[in-house]
Amino acid sequence: MKVPLPSLDHIRDAAARIAPYATVTPVLRSDALDAMVGAQLHFKCENLQRGGAFKFRGACNAVWSLTAEEAARGVVTHSSGNHGNALAMAAATRGIAAHVVVPDGAVRAKLEAIEQAGAILHRCAPTIAAREAKAAEVQRDTGAIMVHPYADTRVMAGQGTLALELLQQCEHLDALITPIGGGGLAAGCSIAAHGIQPSLAIYGAEPSGAADAAQSLMRGTRIDHFTPDTICDGLRALIGESNLDALRMHAVDVITVSDDEIIAATRQLWQALKLVVEVSSATVFAAVIKQRERFAGKQVGLVLTGGNVDLDALPW
Amino acid sequence: MKVPLPSLDHIRDAAARIAPYATVTPVLRSDALDAMVGAQLHFKCENLQRGGAFKFRGACNAVWSLTAEEAARGVVTHSSGNHGNALAMAAATRGIAAHVVVPDGAVRAKLEAIEQAGAILHRCAPTIAAREAKAAEVQRDTGAIMVHPYADTRVMAGQGTLALELLQQCEHLDALITPIGGGGLAAGCSIAAHGIQPSLAIYGAEPSGAADAAQSLMRGTRIDHFTPDTICDGLRALIGESNLDALRMHAVDVITVSDDEIIAATRQLWQALKLVVEVSSATVFAAVIKQRERFAGKQVGLVLTGGNVDLDALPW
Repeated sequence: MKVPLPSLDHIRDAAARIAPYATVTPVLRSDALDAMVGAQLHFKCENLQRGGAFKFRGACNAVWSLTAEEAARGVVTHSSGNHGNALAMAAATRGIAAHVVVPDGAVRAKLEAIEQAGAILHRCAPTIAAREAKAAEVQRDTGAIMVHPYADTRVMAGQGTLALELLQQCEHLDALITPIGGGGLAAGCSIAAHGIQPSLAIYGAEPSGAADAAQSLMRGTRIDHFTPDTICDGLRALIGESNLDALRMHAVDVITVSDDEIIAATRQLWQALKLVVEVSSATVFAAVIKQRERFAGKQVGLVLTGGNVDLDALPW
Repeated sequence: MKVPLPSLDHIRDAAARIAPYATVTPVLRSDALDAMVGAQLHFKCENLQRGGAFKFRGACNAVWSLTAEEAARGVVTHSSGNHGNALAMAAATRGIAAHVVVPDGAVRAKLEAIEQAGAILHRCAPTIAAREAKAAEVQRDTGAIMVHPYADTRVMAGQGTLALELLQQCEHLDALITPIGGGGLAAGCSIAAHGIQPSLAIYGAEPSGAADAAQSLMRGTRIDHFTPDTICDGLRALIGESNLDALRMHAVDVITVSDDEIIAATRQLWQALKLVVEVSSATVFAAVIKQRERFAGKQVGLVLTGGNVDLDALPW
């Protein structure tokens, strides 16, 4: 499903729209990590965003983009992870209903968080078809507005606000690297960053067990089904059609990294930055380690996407 | 051993002196933690300070307070923890030698960090007497200047810069709470905070297995030996004589918390704030949970002192 890509102006509007609700997240540095890779690393800490992930930006922009009449009908999505939680929190800021379709077998702690944020859970079988069918049913029954996790113009615009903010905080970046799952973050950030600084080199990082964006770019056609096999639960989605278009237009270079490399990078980030970050977030640092020649001597922005971790089951 | 307490002016001078080297650490908030205790909590994140702990402030002020002639002789301390590492890093900023006396049996990872920061290690038996004898020997042999972890005017002034910074970042605090070990942080912050805002209520948090400051204040005389029994390796030191005077003068109210309460609070901070913090840091949040009536509805500043943790041996 193609959806329009947002423009830089859409992203600027989104930034104004979410400003009363979202956190301006800090950018952290580490001498030890800089020395490890021979570059100047600027970590954009979206694990410190409301709800513990960048997803709040897109969800919040979507919720506050609705007309009063639309908003009164509530919002719906399917997600067992950070987007579901973000949409629940964003809906709460506007006092409207949020319906979240969750597959059987999803992590209980994540479901509890979504419910605590005030959403109504709808369970379904753990397949893409079942999720979409259930979400359509909820839409029919309640009139709620669908807010897709990444194939949504408003969501992409919201995620792009992160790059606007980062480029204000760090004026001399040479490169920017984000993880790639469905591609909402990568698309929004590419559009925002190149709108402001066309010379910026933009990279994506993908687990080698979910490298559909890398393969789609290489082949020239979008892979439309595959079975992800990676520890990064936040990056198992198929890249969206429009999202892939954005990666192509902005010449995003995707670097793939193994789960072992990701786990090692996660531990290094915790140790050096004193931050709790998800394995999905560590793909970007793993990619810089793996291809350090490409980043040597450069000022590099890295997006740490989230910090919602089960502290009883650390990956190392 | 009594040492002069620093004045507010000393602390302001220290802030200017360390500004080129120290990090202005962020203050983080959490809706979930606020809701848990019914207060507005402002977490001052010294785990994000250089070296992963507030200790860099005091060590850096001490190193840059030396005359050129003194500096040429180098500095020495005894510490197997964050102060040793901080002094090594501070000495490196001035290009001078740092000697750190470390007891046998100290955590290897911490010793490696101290060595990596460029210090010369001197081993000794794990007793206070052996540490002091060894430090005196190093002083005699090298002429190095002693920088005590907390019974030192320059160190207290450096730690006090944290409160100056926090009161600039949060203008409407009702209360401030810091952990208490040797009392360098508590003394410096009390002097700085009351210098600026005399009405601020100041609290300390101590593990019940190392509650010598609480007991000393209660009895009216300083306990001068006891055997600490707490998981908080950063808070096992005896409160210094002058440090205790400062607590008295500033009516610091000490709240004691059990190791179990501290461990539970540590986990809650990791989960909600997405920060890696030491158990010593969590004493302050444990204290607010324990005595929530005293903090209800208040704007409370809490100092998260450090984040140097063994990720392979989490406390829960």
